[in-house]
Amino acid sequence: MDIVYILDIIGVFVFATSGVLTAIDNKFDLVGSAVIGFITALGGGTLRDIMIGQTPVGWMYDVNYLWTILAALILSYLFRKRIVKLRRSLFVFDTIGIGLFTILGLQRTLATGLDPAIALIMGMVSAVFGGVLRDVLTNEIPLIFRREIYATACLAGGLVFLLLTKFYDHELLAMAISMGTVFIIRYMAVRYNWSLNLRARN
Amino acid sequence: MDIVYILDIIGVFVFATSGVLTAIDNKFDLVGSAVIGFITALGGGTLRDIMIGQTPVGWMYDVNYLWTILAALILSYLFRKRIVKLRRSLFVFDTIGIGLFTILGLQRTLATGLDPAIALIMGMVSAVFGGVLRDVLTNEIPLIFRREIYATACLAGGLVFLLLTKFYDHELLAMAISMGTVFIIRYMAVRYNWSLNLRARN
Amino acid sequence: MDIVYILDIIGVFVFATSGVLTAIDNKFDLVGSAVIGFITALGGGTLRDIMIGQTPVGWMYDVNYLWTILAALILSYLFRKRIVKLRRSLFVFDTIGIGLFTILGLQRTLATGLDPAIALIMGMVSAVFGGVLRDVLTNEIPLIFRREIYATACLAGGLVFLLLTKFYDHELLAMAISMGTVFIIRYMAVRYNWSLNLRARN
Repeated sequence: MDIVYILDIIGVFVFATSGVLTAIDNKFDLVGSAVIGFITALGGGTLRDIMIGQTPVGWMYDVNYLWTILAALILSYLFRKRIVKLRRSLFVFDTIGIGLFTILGLQRTLATGLDPAIALIMGMVSAVFGGVLRDVLTNEIPLIFRREIYATACLAGGLVFLLLTKFYDHELLAMAISMGTVFIIRYMAVRYNWSLNLRARN
Repeated sequence: MDIVYILDIIGVFVFATSGVLTAIDNKFDLVGSAVIGFITALGGGTLRDIMIGQTPVGWMYDVNYLWTILAALILSYLFRKRIVKLRRSLFVFDTIGIGLFTILGLQRTLATGLDPAIALIMGMVSAVFGGVLRDVLTNEIPLIFRREIYATACLAGGLVFLLLTKFYDHELLAMAISMGTVFIIRYMAVRYNWSLNLRARN
Repeated sequence: MDIVYILDIIGVFVFATSGVLTAIDNKFDLVGSAVIGFITALGGGTLRDIMIGQTPVGWMYDVNYLWTILAALILSYLFRKRIVKLRRSLFVFDTIGIGLFTILGLQRTLATGLDPAIALIMGMVSAVFGGVLRDVLTNEIPLIFRREIYATACLAGGLVFLLLTKFYDHELLAMAISMGTVFIIRYMAVRYNWSLNLRARN
């Protein structure tokens, strides 16, 4: 599961970076940016763990998550302009992160013996509620509620994972396919929205 | 306890409907509306369960809650105008829901061995914090903080329940009377506010 | 540990008072003020306990916290103007409260066997997230994110406590010194900000 751990860390890094950049846009100071980066990256998983009763919450057992967020904080402050230019690459990793967080959250919920329907919801919570908490703390209506595709992609990916693991016995392959599902839906959505915007402008 | 379960489901349905209607008013999409409906209906109980350590939280053990919220979502989208016209009937069920959630939350807290004063607070949290979370997520100052009667009615109803069960051994009757207390206080409050508004307008 | 308990109660009283005054400024009613006072005083510790799995959360085992908050509520309503004039004295107790909440939160986290780095974060969460929740519920961007010194002071005080208890075996002295650290940093920060504001005005 080494590749999964590495992807997890990358996902945390990208989510934290997105949180820190939002915080800087809101003129938060260094500590405020660290808190927002932290909550964006680990808030969804924290909420999931609290609700399914897996406490102390997961990230408390692996200090690497803290170092990853600290690295995202420092790099965001040092190379902000360059990172903003990398938005396209960040989008790729962000979507990988969302897909992975969905599946990891789903697996963790299933492992406690809860119903697959609950696991599906908790997978989505893991992936998107970090962003919801970030938006609430920066006093914005959560983006997720107006751009349904984020949550929908998570639910679809989670469903694919549940179906694949039900009928086949290859979990890593199922993870790859379901994360691919999240990726494709989100990628198509961004293109679709783009043309939608063009039409709306006429 | 069949009647209690049926009232519980009706309460969840009415709360979810109120959440979905608020979400539609805020131009949230379908997924956003589902999330807000869900949180309005189950957010208070979730918060209570997390705080008193009853995790995984209660609704995770009964998928019927999910179906109920899904039904509320679909019906709210299909028959929005007709539901808005039913506001008076909704108010009745909403108040029954608040009364029931208060007592169920109180009972669940007492069952963990906590102090009745804590159970009283947790009953109120169960009944009103779903609405508080809805308001926070739609970026409004929670209504509850300016219309004290919601929370006060819960506390009064909870107190009546505690006193009745202390001196008599008939729990269902105590539930009915304390829910009636919540109902009467809220009903009178709505009338009182109405005349207050009339006076304020002069 | 009697002195610690007394300071804890004083801290809760001062935090609750600050919450109630904010609520009154926002034209919240009595119940709304009670809820905001409660969350300001006990929200940080509640969040910490939930995350580290110490549930039912701490204040549920000691009804004195409720009485303390009730006292803060009543006194704030009766003597609002006089309390506002006491702001300087309140600041002293507020900072003592922040220092104490940091150390108590840190100790409680360490006691569950978690890493000192996690305990440091949880100490900070205990001290400042009550204020964050108050700001979110009154629909403001949390002050803490723009005035880094609150959180920084907590982290510094927590670090001093960790180092002192690692090398010396006198916990009460370590508490006193680390709370003094929080106090001095915050006191200096207020003076520094003051002159900063003067400069910014030119």
